[in-house]
Amino acid sequence: MQTPEIIANRVAQVRDTLRSLELDAFIVPHDDEHLGEYIPADAERLAWLTGFNGSAGVAVVLTNRAALFVDGRYTVQARLQAPGEIFEYHHLVETPHVAWLADQLERGARVGFDPRLHSLNGYREAKALLADRGIELVPVAQNPIDQHWDDRPAPSKTPAILYGEELAGESSTAKRERIAADLRKRGLDAALLTQVESINWLLNLRGRDVERLPVVLGFAILYANGTLDFFVDTDKLECFAFTQHVGNDVSLHPIDKLGEVLSRLGEDRLRVLADPATSNAWSQLTLEEAGATLVAGQDPTLRLKACKNEVELAGMHNAHQRDAVAVVRFLAWLDRLVQSGDFDGVDEGTLADRLEAFRKESDLYVEPSFDTISALGPNAAMCHYRHTNGVPRPFGLDGIYLVDSGGQYLDGTTDITRTLCVGEVTEEQKALFTRVMQGHIALDQARFPRGTAGIQLDVLARLPLWQAGFNYDHGTGHGVGHFLSVHEGPQRIGPKGNLEPLQPGMVLSNEPGYYREDGFGIRCENLVVVTECEEPSEVPMLRFERLTHVPFDTRLIDRSLLSPDEFRWINEYHAEVRRRLSPLLEGDDLAWLEQATELL
Amino acid sequence: MQTPEIIANRVAQVRDTLRSLELDAFIVPHDDEHLGEYIPADAERLAWLTGFNGSAGVAVVLTNRAALFVDGRYTVQARLQAPGEIFEYHHLVETPHVAWLADQLERGARVGFDPRLHSLNGYREAKALLADRGIELVPVAQNPIDQHWDDRPAPSKTPAILYGEELAGESSTAKRERIAADLRKRGLDAALLTQVESINWLLNLRGRDVERLPVVLGFAILYANGTLDFFVDTDKLECFAFTQHVGNDVSLHPIDKLGEVLSRLGEDRLRVLADPATSNAWSQLTLEEAGATLVAGQDPTLRLKACKNEVELAGMHNAHQRDAVAVVRFLAWLDRLVQSGDFDGVDEGTLADRLEAFRKESDLYVEPSFDTISALGPNAAMCHYRHTNGVPRPFGLDGIYLVDSGGQYLDGTTDITRTLCVGEVTEEQKALFTRVMQGHIALDQARFPRGTAGIQLDVLARLPLWQAGFNYDHGTGHGVGHFLSVHEGPQRIGPKGNLEPLQPGMVLSNEPGYYREDGFGIRCENLVVVTECEEPSEVPMLRFERLTHVPFDTRLIDRSLLSPDEFRWINEYHAEVRRRLSPLLEGDDLAWLEQATELL
Repeated sequence: MQTPEIIANRVAQVRDTLRSLELDAFIVPHDDEHLGEYIPADAERLAWLTGFNGSAGVAVVLTNRAALFVDGRYTVQARLQAPGEIFEYHHLVETPHVAWLADQLERGARVGFDPRLHSLNGYREAKALLADRGIELVPVAQNPIDQHWDDRPAPSKTPAILYGEELAGESSTAKRERIAADLRKRGLDAALLTQVESINWLLNLRGRDVERLPVVLGFAILYANGTLDFFVDTDKLECFAFTQHVGNDVSLHPIDKLGEVLSRLGEDRLRVLADPATSNAWSQLTLEEAGATLVAGQDPTLRLKACKNEVELAGMHNAHQRDAVAVVRFLAWLDRLVQSGDFDGVDEGTLADRLEAFRKESDLYVEPSFDTISALGPNAAMCHYRHTNGVPRPFGLDGIYLVDSGGQYLDGTTDITRTLCVGEVTEEQKALFTRVMQGHIALDQARFPRGTAGIQLDVLARLPLWQAGFNYDHGTGHGVGHFLSVHEGPQRIGPKGNLEPLQPGMVLSNEPGYYREDGFGIRCENLVVVTECEEPSEVPMLRFERLTHVPFDTRLIDRSLLSPDEFRWINEYHAEVRRRLSPLLEGDDLAWLEQATELL
Repeated sequence: MQTPEIIANRVAQVRDTLRSLELDAFIVPHDDEHLGEYIPADAERLAWLTGFNGSAGVAVVLTNRAALFVDGRYTVQARLQAPGEIFEYHHLVETPHVAWLADQLERGARVGFDPRLHSLNGYREAKALLADRGIELVPVAQNPIDQHWDDRPAPSKTPAILYGEELAGESSTAKRERIAADLRKRGLDAALLTQVESINWLLNLRGRDVERLPVVLGFAILYANGTLDFFVDTDKLECFAFTQHVGNDVSLHPIDKLGEVLSRLGEDRLRVLADPATSNAWSQLTLEEAGATLVAGQDPTLRLKACKNEVELAGMHNAHQRDAVAVVRFLAWLDRLVQSGDFDGVDEGTLADRLEAFRKESDLYVEPSFDTISALGPNAAMCHYRHTNGVPRPFGLDGIYLVDSGGQYLDGTTDITRTLCVGEVTEEQKALFTRVMQGHIALDQARFPRGTAGIQLDVLARLPLWQAGFNYDHGTGHGVGHFLSVHEGPQRIGPKGNLEPLQPGMVLSNEPGYYREDGFGIRCENLVVVTECEEPSEVPMLRFERLTHVPFDTRLIDRSLLSPDEFRWINEYHAEVRRRLSPLLEGDDLAWLEQATELL
């Protein structure tokens, strides 16, 4: 926690730089150069400046005022962490920061930004909006925060992990050739890769540069002949072993050589594929100014990475089996805790720690795949609740406990939510839990033709709630990486604009929920893999295969609402869970599993 | 039917003009200046040139060859009608005509087109694609076909209908003011309106200029102060009565003055809203070249027109009640025909005529809302079958008859499909009919939050088929106008890209189907209105209210597949049909209704 005095001093330092650069404002986003969801500690510029350490937001410093913009998840946390006497607060969606800036400044004003921390699309939109008001958007060569951040953490030096073909299922050379062939077909000379998951997947690398995301940070340029320039802290790689691992066609460069190579691509007049939505403005402007032709398009690794091969899927299945054992042991322990009645010192934090302790018993476990959401009673009504942002709620006050957690294992990534009966629950809560389960079951059972997008299936998970007048305000399913980000695209199941067809091998979550503000929260989440149907059909059909095998809490089910099909699904699922996990459990845990998977 | 000699002569005449204009090719689309679905006889240039009279397609005439491009609906008809020795045939989707042209021509070639018959978007895409190959796209001042079309039908002179507020529910002045207020809010000076349905709705006009579409043809410019310039064949309007009808703020102009006014808007440097997807290139290029700023956006009448007001909805309900009586009398007659066993002279054509005869008994009936699809046995497997394109199939050979038809009534537009048992049917056919009905019922029963788009609901109508490995290759629901086009946007229920939220007052069809090539076809279609739910709910919910009340053929249902909810739906629907129609029927028809709506 930073004191208001420290924050005030930092803001003053940034203002000094603004004055020297003749700027009237400066924009500080949460993002780093890779524009991904997770960033390393040395990129937490927004937290340094404001004290606010949430995972999304943007600050704007003017000469005489400053503002912090966050979305609905973080309105409470922002007020707790960023001093109100220095920062005014705005809702990022209701009051977008660029529009707000345009209203604050006079014609002729100059707004500074770091072009490495904004997407090209974001930059262009901001530039157009400000230009309409006669305001100039000025790229800075060096970020003012970097100039003043004295106690900045050193960047990670953890060695990269050469991720073997026995885990990745395909050599980097083969992956590069598949994409290079596509570049050639499209008449492109190269592709700029800036998303770290993409590069780690393509080079069969992993690392520990970022918490929750097992990657080594870097940039890459893939050429149409299959060669690749990799920009990375070369200290993290043993050169000879790396070359053996990825092949001779990959050249290593220090990260600060990226600009030079981009300029050379421009001088050679290359046609370069880059994604203006996910790649930073600086890299694309550098290419363009040097003479390259930018061809806007999706990161070419995304779809290939999303469709897991058989080795990756085997790893995901194995990781999920291990994870299921840990979760079941936690659930058995939790029920014993409830029965004991002794809740002394137990709270959301100790519960999360206990769950991780079970996961840590696996040799292949690396870290959580995201910060565990361990939420009792009303806290579960906040979809992205983090007990570490305040005082963890003590156990014993509530009927319902929601725990959403996952693990990064060397062979796969997991993500599971269970909603549990830990006290008295009302009939209404049971009815709502049952409707959430009915949505989960309907989506799980769907068969759908090739070409179907997640937006088309989303309603299946919502309809039981809709029919009763309820809904939930988040997507139903996100993509999941293979020992990579627990959130990956392009696949998604949700009510909004993503029309990407679901394809065999894509991993997705199935997680409908229901949230009663200040009351309780319900979410039922398994991971599934898109698979071809074996059953004969007139048109080629796909379906979901389950990765997650952990009992749902049948004590929360209102049986009167279930159809025979839904009874059958629950019983078959629980029989499958028992079949898979019984051999891996013993004693009280095995007894718990048998009781938790009894026929409904 | 045109002889090949006549067609050859016409193509030669067009080639003469090409030579005189130094063009290497000329593009002839089916579209007219309004780019809508239905066009008047004097705009059937494609049919004049090729003999093909389908509702979609495009021909390309080169100096030494010619080609006709049609979609899957019309591959058979195109070969029957357009002489193969003159036109080669291509599939419009698999071999788009512009790409094909680019492959045929040398660099430096010149391709002529009539900019009034192509959207601005279509023009820009074609221009870019051809420019990539060094080919020029050249607008012609006069369409070569118009120069040679000697026996061209005279344009309609039928007087316009002043459509009273007792039918329209809102004055033209009020409608114009609603849109003008929006233009002012968006900083726009005017909107170019080229879709005839939009203009007829906005001015509370109807006409008989086009078959199946009760409109008077014209163009309009609406200004931000609510005034409007209407470009129309002024012979069709009695000036004094018209001004009384629409108010003093509407100025009448002959259609050929449009270019002059567009140029004046340009000289005045106005910001003009125009829809580049639905408005022709000529009008927007004229504006732009004269100095106007084009602001691309959806036709501003679309959403307002789509959300019917209470008077329009009352008209729709009344029209549907009248239509239901006609359809039920036809269905009763059909069952008596089947029982009689005397099918002499009965075929798809006489059935369609008989159905229309029942509709014609209503004073308010104007014409069919589209060409009736009267399809026996295998013909029903073609979704857009027209018995008038070949020899109508005789009655008595098949188990299943599909009839998709509708009426334009002065107070509303109808569209209904029933699939009927008229002979022996197989268990498989019954199972498939039942699955189509299950989809129809699931969509009909859905409740959904405000903001939901049709693409999200589409799966409800398909899932019962998907779960058995089947699908259908068309959308599930199209928008329907109010005594206007039976196909209107922006609302739609389908698997592809339309994300327009469904709003109260929008009318849509609910028409899942199943098609077995060379076998049979099934479709179950009602029209519904989007309505607010009265039931209490946590978030504002919408649902569908049914407009169509005609029995479904329960002889085709496999009861073993139905859930209790589906039984209940069918029985409640039939009880409602009986309640509404019994008082309007008598004798054998009433007896038929009672038997057709018996409890399942």
